[in-house]
Amino acid sequence: MTRQQLFEQIQRKRSYLCIGLDTDIKKIPQHLLQHEDPLFEFNRQIIEATADLCVAYKPNIAFYEAHGPKGWVSLQKTLDVIPQDIFTIADAKRGDIGNTSELYARAFFDQMNFDSLTVAPYMGVDSVTPFLNFPNKWVILLALTSNPGHEDFQLLSVVSEGKSYFLFEKVLLNSQEWGSAENMMYVVGATRCDYVERIRELVPDHFLLVPGVGAQGGSLEEISKYGMNKECGLLVNSARQIIYASSGEDFAEKAREAALQVQQEMDRYLNEYLPI
Amino acid sequence: MTRQQLFEQIQRKRSYLCIGLDTDIKKIPQHLLQHEDPLFEFNRQIIEATADLCVAYKPNIAFYEAHGPKGWVSLQKTLDVIPQDIFTIADAKRGDIGNTSELYARAFFDQMNFDSLTVAPYMGVDSVTPFLNFPNKWVILLALTSNPGHEDFQLLSVVSEGKSYFLFEKVLLNSQEWGSAENMMYVVGATRCDYVERIRELVPDHFLLVPGVGAQGGSLEEISKYGMNKECGLLVNSARQIIYASSGEDFAEKAREAALQVQQEMDRYLNEYLPI
Repeated sequence: MTRQQLFEQIQRKRSYLCIGLDTDIKKIPQHLLQHEDPLFEFNRQIIEATADLCVAYKPNIAFYEAHGPKGWVSLQKTLDVIPQDIFTIADAKRGDIGNTSELYARAFFDQMNFDSLTVAPYMGVDSVTPFLNFPNKWVILLALTSNPGHEDFQLLSVVSEGKSYFLFEKVLLNSQEWGSAENMMYVVGATRCDYVERIRELVPDHFLLVPGVGAQGGSLEEISKYGMNKECGLLVNSARQIIYASSGEDFAEKAREAALQVQQEMDRYLNEYLPI
Repeated sequence: MTRQQLFEQIQRKRSYLCIGLDTDIKKIPQHLLQHEDPLFEFNRQIIEATADLCVAYKPNIAFYEAHGPKGWVSLQKTLDVIPQDIFTIADAKRGDIGNTSELYARAFFDQMNFDSLTVAPYMGVDSVTPFLNFPNKWVILLALTSNPGHEDFQLLSVVSEGKSYFLFEKVLLNSQEWGSAENMMYVVGATRCDYVERIRELVPDHFLLVPGVGAQGGSLEEISKYGMNKECGLLVNSARQIIYASSGEDFAEKAREAALQVQQEMDRYLNEYLPI
């Protein structure tokens, strides 16, 4: 999917919501356990109920991998029922030496047909560039994550050519030599909205994938106010708050209600904060 | 496996060789393709031919994941034929927010019964500690990797409390608060032997997993000379050089010959460099 197509979808749906498919067999409604493939059945109903309200789905790969080979089958079946015009994110946080990243790229982009993959930056250029050789596919590079551990390394003070940066700023700067706003996005947690203006100075045009709204305490209004650019430039993820809105037979309906609430809020922020 | 058991195995076999099972369907001998599960059949024969010469096997997870669900079956079957006393490393470079790392830990440690997993440090403490709660299981944290991209971030100069460090040094220092030499190792590429003395000052007791010998240009003698501690403290990985020593029907035999050559060299270095 191109950036233009993604933005068109955002305008059409008045939404920049990404729904995280962190599908946990222990949290899905009991009655689904009688299905042959409960993870897939849960996802299928969630997708059917919310596809007009969100612009992206983000399966968290660990939740599928934890089930071994059959988890990968549930994942592939899930991918297959996501409408073509919706952006898909494999939240896998991969990244390895060149020939290995190449294999991951083929697995997620060619075989499973994801639009994008989250990638960890620590190993540098040759761990990231193999993912950038696939037309209309995206790398979503970790920059400033929403978890408590982001303070350990991402906020370290780095000195480079006489100037001082946070490590995550060097990730933003160096990686711009590897790809462009047409094939790279960055993960920026809503829990650190205090850095978003600074981030927008460094990457004004890139899309940001934003976790951390809701359960983790980030504010949708703040990230929208400081993070939005002229093509929106935000995909705000919500998982638990939507997909586990109810643990009863009405889970899909309640997920829709929760997604609708977020979408309506996003509609307001698009009116308010999208630069014209 | 405990550190003591690992060291006993090293002494018994006079080897600290780790064989990388980077099993590529395009590189394995043609005649194996007629088998129902060629990846597994290749691994099975390699393991049978080399198990007395090495102390660890390290499947590179990407090579299995690239085949979808059936790749995971090949991986599990491979694990099942590795003798119990040999250390197993899932080279997966995982690392995510706490609840997600927990799922990865269960997948690799509980379900597949790997002894250890490689983990990327960028997301910090809560992405690593979930792996440390499993008795006799190990985190192998990326510190200074062997690929060209290690220069992008790992060698950045970080200032912390008035002192200057390389980023990889901060990874070594901070992570020692999370685990110990009994449940953590570090990845240190043999391509950067110039840093090994410095690394040994910071982590004198930890095992190092060392890629980059052979095809990537690292020297086995140098890493042994500067990296060995009193419990050896090294697992030196070799993949291509051993498993693809021949592409004919004699591949297992030739792999054994290549492994034997490395083991004999290691025997000499254990005599020479193991502190008494």
